[in-house]
Amino acid sequence: MKKPEKITSRTANFAKWYVDVITQADLMNYGPIKGTIYFKPLGYKIWENIVKIVNAYFVKQKIENVYFPLLIPQDFIEKEKKHIEGFAPELLTITKVGGKNLVENIYIRPTSELLFADYFKAEIAKNNILPIKLNQWSQVLRWEKTTNPFLRNTEFLWQEGHTIHASKVEADQFAKKIARFYKYFLENYLAIPVISGQKTEREKFAGAVNTYTVEAMMQNFRALQSATAHFLGQNFAKNFEIFYKNKENKSQIPFQTSWGLSTRLIGAIVMVHSDDNGLIFPPKIAPIQVDILEFFSKKNQEVKIFAKKIAKILKNAKISYKIDDTDQQIGYKINNSEVHGAPIRIEIGPNEVKNNQICLVRRDNHQKFFFNIDLLKEKCRKILEQIQADLFKKAKIRLLENTVFVNSINEFEQAIKNNKFVIAPFSESPEREQEIQEKTGATARCILPKNSFFALPQTGNSIFSGEKTNKFVLFAKSY
Amino acid sequence: MKKPEKITSRTANFAKWYVDVITQADLMNYGPIKGTIYFKPLGYKIWENIVKIVNAYFVKQKIENVYFPLLIPQDFIEKEKKHIEGFAPELLTITKVGGKNLVENIYIRPTSELLFADYFKAEIAKNNILPIKLNQWSQVLRWEKTTNPFLRNTEFLWQEGHTIHASKVEADQFAKKIARFYKYFLENYLAIPVISGQKTEREKFAGAVNTYTVEAMMQNFRALQSATAHFLGQNFAKNFEIFYKNKENKSQIPFQTSWGLSTRLIGAIVMVHSDDNGLIFPPKIAPIQVDILEFFSKKNQEVKIFAKKIAKILKNAKISYKIDDTDQQIGYKINNSEVHGAPIRIEIGPNEVKNNQICLVRRDNHQKFFFNIDLLKEKCRKILEQIQADLFKKAKIRLLENTVFVNSINEFEQAIKNNKFVIAPFSESPEREQEIQEKTGATARCILPKNSFFALPQTGNSIFSGEKTNKFVLFAKSY
Repeated sequence: MKKPEKITSRTANFAKWYVDVITQADLMNYGPIKGTIYFKPLGYKIWENIVKIVNAYFVKQKIENVYFPLLIPQDFIEKEKKHIEGFAPELLTITKVGGKNLVENIYIRPTSELLFADYFKAEIAKNNILPIKLNQWSQVLRWEKTTNPFLRNTEFLWQEGHTIHASKVEADQFAKKIARFYKYFLENYLAIPVISGQKTEREKFAGAVNTYTVEAMMQNFRALQSATAHFLGQNFAKNFEIFYKNKENKSQIPFQTSWGLSTRLIGAIVMVHSDDNGLIFPPKIAPIQVDILEFFSKKNQEVKIFAKKIAKILKNAKISYKIDDTDQQIGYKINNSEVHGAPIRIEIGPNEVKNNQICLVRRDNHQKFFFNIDLLKEKCRKILEQIQADLFKKAKIRLLENTVFVNSINEFEQAIKNNKFVIAPFSESPEREQEIQEKTGATARCILPKNSFFALPQTGNSIFSGEKTNKFVLFAKSY
Repeated sequence: MKKPEKITSRTANFAKWYVDVITQADLMNYGPIKGTIYFKPLGYKIWENIVKIVNAYFVKQKIENVYFPLLIPQDFIEKEKKHIEGFAPELLTITKVGGKNLVENIYIRPTSELLFADYFKAEIAKNNILPIKLNQWSQVLRWEKTTNPFLRNTEFLWQEGHTIHASKVEADQFAKKIARFYKYFLENYLAIPVISGQKTEREKFAGAVNTYTVEAMMQNFRALQSATAHFLGQNFAKNFEIFYKNKENKSQIPFQTSWGLSTRLIGAIVMVHSDDNGLIFPPKIAPIQVDILEFFSKKNQEVKIFAKKIAKILKNAKISYKIDDTDQQIGYKINNSEVHGAPIRIEIGPNEVKNNQICLVRRDNHQKFFFNIDLLKEKCRKILEQIQADLFKKAKIRLLENTVFVNSINEFEQAIKNNKFVIAPFSESPEREQEIQEKTGATARCILPKNSFFALPQTGNSIFSGEKTNKFVLFAKSY
């Protein structure tokens, strides 16, 4: 019999709490190579749920799925210098096959802009049709110095979308549209409130003109860049010599975008919602929405029958469930359900059967509900909706309560020391951003848009130069 | 305007015909590295359809999806010698990261038995629960000397299932069950008849005890190994020292299986069903089941309206479709539809609109149907079913007509020369198989089971030794 393990508390050691939760909740095991993980069934199921929802949106947008090679040749690598400088230290390099040296090194994709540029070039030369909107569900590899399961893995799963357009405005607008969808997806499905905006020059994607990001706050008040969309301008098109003919039959250089979200979001779900008892899944993304726990069912066959009756109702209501029909102790079963994060558990003992009664417990706040089984479908749906809303609300309050405005360097440093998200008037150089990072550990997360939900003043004085600016930048310590 | 290209005929050059079809039908472009391809939207959609059907079966069988690392460490490679000998020449080897040499080489998975063994070991040590049934949808890489799009790529997409069981019989039966499913899937969804059976010692998977295979016949009468399931015995479990405790609390070594099908099946679909005009998709796997072609719609708005009306009916009937509303010539549109393989096309001109009439053409035999639009849903469904059945029947007849029984070496050699599938009584050594391959180019595809659909005699005399045997082996030239 498996013994229950102890989860470190968040206040004692947040990093250890995180690893305790994801391992004890069976999301992953460590892989044999640094920074790699085995996605276990429950962990992978979260990703499958994410894929399903996000992919449905892409299909609606007439974005077509493709699959492009994992391998990038040497000569591609030399084509886009800024892009590759950003990724060079992380590139896994194949130099041998079956013990024999290759003539030219081959690289494993850290992202696929180079391959999509190559593909677009050939397709446009052949058909001269724009825009092309593609996406692939795949993995990329980046050899990171510091790794953290889901948050920063050597290998991670993601979608990477790539589009190419005749019009600059159309491309930039498309990248922004995707960023808006990412925000919508995180807030409405993962119950994770985000701050969205444009990256600073220093923080934008290597090779992009603009990067649009959505940033979330973890329970330790650190920021997590949760998804990004890039307007690439003509950077890749120029280097790959991609041309299309316009209506006047003149050669023109098109504009590109790329955008992605990854299994990093699994880490975000855990770090935003879970507690010291284990995982808490937002119902809309939960692999299992309801745990049905049988108590004393070995001696009480009617408990098993009642559990099956409940399961049937849930199945018809399209609510996912799992029955715990093991011989474990009650305490163990409850603990086990709490660790694995099903938003609701239903406890069935002989009393429930006798009274035709449901005993339902919310995972997030341990609130108990008792009602007749006839109300199960309706109640269950309502409570799942309520949990989804409450998790979002709780996270949103946390985000708002821990985001502060500052007007001076002193205030800035103090706020970062206090683990706050900090918004400051800021029109400084990338070098100044680097100084800030070295001194405080905080980085610029994004430039806030004018329509941000924060009531920003029209202008302020940039915290270093004192220069008047209408640019407000969010800073935070981040993953 | 894109010009129609010419497809080489099958009789002129089968290999060139194949490449012409898959490129002109927009299934793929060649990738930048030898043996890699860009899966274009239509090609990838076939794979998505395969995944959907096969995955639904796995879910029903309570096989759980996971995702395991792409990277295999040096010390794993040294654990299973027979297995690795089979793959060593094809292993892509990472020796550097960001320009710096690694202390130990890292290998890209050619298959993941080693990783699953490592995972099973940890899980069973922790929980002692058997069986475990896992699957992953991913890619593997094998550096092949001769490559061929879809059929033999450096990188290909596949599912690889891995299970571990307490009982030897249970494991072997499970591998057989999966092989039966593969046969069912190919025959019922891809309309590809197969011969299934066990691999010979020489041909079985590196590291397996038994390999169960399904073999299909292409239109040039070459065999394609289309999916395999392996009973691995305790080979990996012993090398990885995997133990479980039985009811008497004694340490036991469990038994494993692994099994997979891949994007090679896309090549099989093309090579079994298509013709000199291009692709022909079996309706159950077709990305687009119906092409709706508008003729003269620029001058006749009512043609567009009629097309939309048809589309609406098909959508409600859950039949996939695509409208060609371009300004191309009629001949071009028909040709283009034929190339891309939709099983049915509907041609709409002003006459059809006037008479409220559907003009429907079968892609496979060019049969034309005229009927009132009110019958569309019913007719369309029926004709799609008929096409599915007819494609299977045609391929099955080809398989039967081109499979011969032989009783001597001379007959054997003559039959192989005539491009036949050859069944021979055969109880010879692996060395003899190798001789046969060197002399005739044919390899043993599988040992036929007793319940094969071929009416096999009880026994025969092995074609070399003359020894009496009840073993009948299928030989063929293969991909």
